[in-house]
Amino acid sequence: MPNYAIKIEYDGSQYVGYQVQPNGPSIQSQIEKALRLMAKLPSDEKIPTIGSGRTDSGVHAKGQVVQFNYPATIEPKSLLKALNSILPDDIRVLAAAAVSEDFHARYSAISKTYRFIVNNESFPDPFTRLYSLHHPYPCDLERMQQAIQAIIGTHDFTSFCSTKTDKIDLVRTIYHASIIYQEPYFIFEFKGNGFLYNMIRILVGTILQIGDGLKPIDELEHLLEIKDRNQAGPTANGNGLYMIEVEYEWDPFSGANAYHL
Amino acid sequence: MPNYAIKIEYDGSQYVGYQVQPNGPSIQSQIEKALRLMAKLPSDEKIPTIGSGRTDSGVHAKGQVVQFNYPATIEPKSLLKALNSILPDDIRVLAAAAVSEDFHARYSAISKTYRFIVNNESFPDPFTRLYSLHHPYPCDLERMQQAIQAIIGTHDFTSFCSTKTDKIDLVRTIYHASIIYQEPYFIFEFKGNGFLYNMIRILVGTILQIGDGLKPIDELEHLLEIKDRNQAGPTANGNGLYMIEVEYEWDPFSGANAYHL
Repeated sequence: MPNYAIKIEYDGSQYVGYQVQPNGPSIQSQIEKALRLMAKLPSDEKIPTIGSGRTDSGVHAKGQVVQFNYPATIEPKSLLKALNSILPDDIRVLAAAAVSEDFHARYSAISKTYRFIVNNESFPDPFTRLYSLHHPYPCDLERMQQAIQAIIGTHDFTSFCSTKTDKIDLVRTIYHASIIYQEPYFIFEFKGNGFLYNMIRILVGTILQIGDGLKPIDELEHLLEIKDRNQAGPTANGNGLYMIEVEYEWDPFSGANAYHL
Repeated sequence: MPNYAIKIEYDGSQYVGYQVQPNGPSIQSQIEKALRLMAKLPSDEKIPTIGSGRTDSGVHAKGQVVQFNYPATIEPKSLLKALNSILPDDIRVLAAAAVSEDFHARYSAISKTYRFIVNNESFPDPFTRLYSLHHPYPCDLERMQQAIQAIIGTHDFTSFCSTKTDKIDLVRTIYHASIIYQEPYFIFEFKGNGFLYNMIRILVGTILQIGDGLKPIDELEHLLEIKDRNQAGPTANGNGLYMIEVEYEWDPFSGANAYHL
C-alpha cells in the first residue's frame, strides 16, 4: 500500500494527548477515524498511523508529522482536503505528501523543535489561557538565559525524565535552547535529536524556579550530574507546550509529491 | 452604597452571553457570584450589576464595562485583585474605579466600539476557531470597503435588527465603520452611539455576501431604505465578535480613583 505523510497542527486542549488511550479522545484516534471514513472501511477496521512522537494531554502542535499506508493511491491535495473536511476544527492538516516506502515518521526524524510559552502576567489572559502556562511570579530572564546554556550538547537527562518512562537510553543531544521575552510572555525554544517523556515540561518547571530565585543558576548542571528526577523542579503544565517542527534528512513535504494548505 | 465600575475582558465561548439567563452560565452571573463571595453575602442575596450592554452567546469582550453598588468602601486595587482571584480564567478585570453616584454603565455611555474578525482561509485555524468566524469563500475586500460606507451616519437600522428586539426607536448613528485585511483575517470595526440586537452580526453577514459577489455593492443602501430584516443577509456567528470599548463623557477609568491591571 502506498505510504503517505501529513503535517498537522492541533489545539490539544480537548484531548488526552496525541496517542490513542482508553480514557478519552486523542489526536491519533481522530486522524485514524477520518482516514477510515475516507477509505469507507467498516468501523471495526482501521488504518494504523505512526506519529513522529507523542504529545501529552493539553499539549499543542504546529508541525506534528503522521505517516500511514493508505489502501489506495490518492493525490496529496485530495488527501489534505478530504481529511480537513472530516477532521474536527481543532485539528488541521497543513501539508500532505506521497513518501517512499522506507519513510518512517518516528525513526526517520533527525531532530525536533518544541516551544513553551509562559504568561508572566499577574492574572491569566482569557484568550491565551489554554495556550500558555500562567506563571504570575517575578521571574528573571537573564538568570534563566544563563542557566539554560547548561543543557546544550549531549547529556544524560535522567533528572528530566518522568520515572514512568520505558526508555533505557536517557542520553539526548540538544542543538539549541533559548528563552526570549515578548511582553508578557517568556518563549522557550528547544531543538534536539529527541526528547524524553515530560523532559521539556520538567526543564521548564526547573528553569522557572531558577528565574524565580528559588534555585541557583547552576542548578541544571547539578541535576545533569546527579541524575535524579526527584531533585528537579515540577512538571510544568502541558498547555504551554507546542511541537513546532520535525526535521528529516530529506524533507517529505518538499518537491512535487507534496501539497501545502 | 458606594458605586464602582470595572472594565472586563472575557472569552465568551463557554457562556450563553453577557446577561443572566435561565439556560446556562453567563458572564454577569459569574461577576455577581464573585461579588457575593467577596462581600460574604448568603447565597440567596446578591449584588446586582449593570453592564454597558449585552453580548450574545459566544461573543467576546476586551472592554465591557460593569457597574454596581458595593455594600462597603473598597480600594479599586483590592476590588480588582479580589475579583480576579475569584473569577474563572476566561474572565479578567482590566481596571476598577470608584465612580460618582450618578454614573450608569449603560445610560452614561456615549459610544461603543466593536470588532468582528473573519478568517478567510479554506479550513479553520485550530488556534483561532473560537475567536473568529470562518468564511472560506473568495471575498473581495474593496467591494466590502466600498459597501460599508453606506452605514456611516444616522440611519434607521430596522433591516439589521433581530425581529426579537423590544426596542421601538431603531435609529442609530455610526461614527466609524471600516474593514482591513491582515492575512488571513478580515477585521471589521464599528463605532456608534449604540447598536441594535444582532445588528453587527447581520451587517457582517450581509457585507460578506457583498464581498462574495452574491449581492450588489449598494445592497446596504437599499436595505437601509426598505427597512426589512428578511431582505438582509444571515446573522454571522457570534464567535468573531468582540466588544472593544465603551466611551463615556468622562472616562471612569482615568484619574486617581482608578486602578489598572
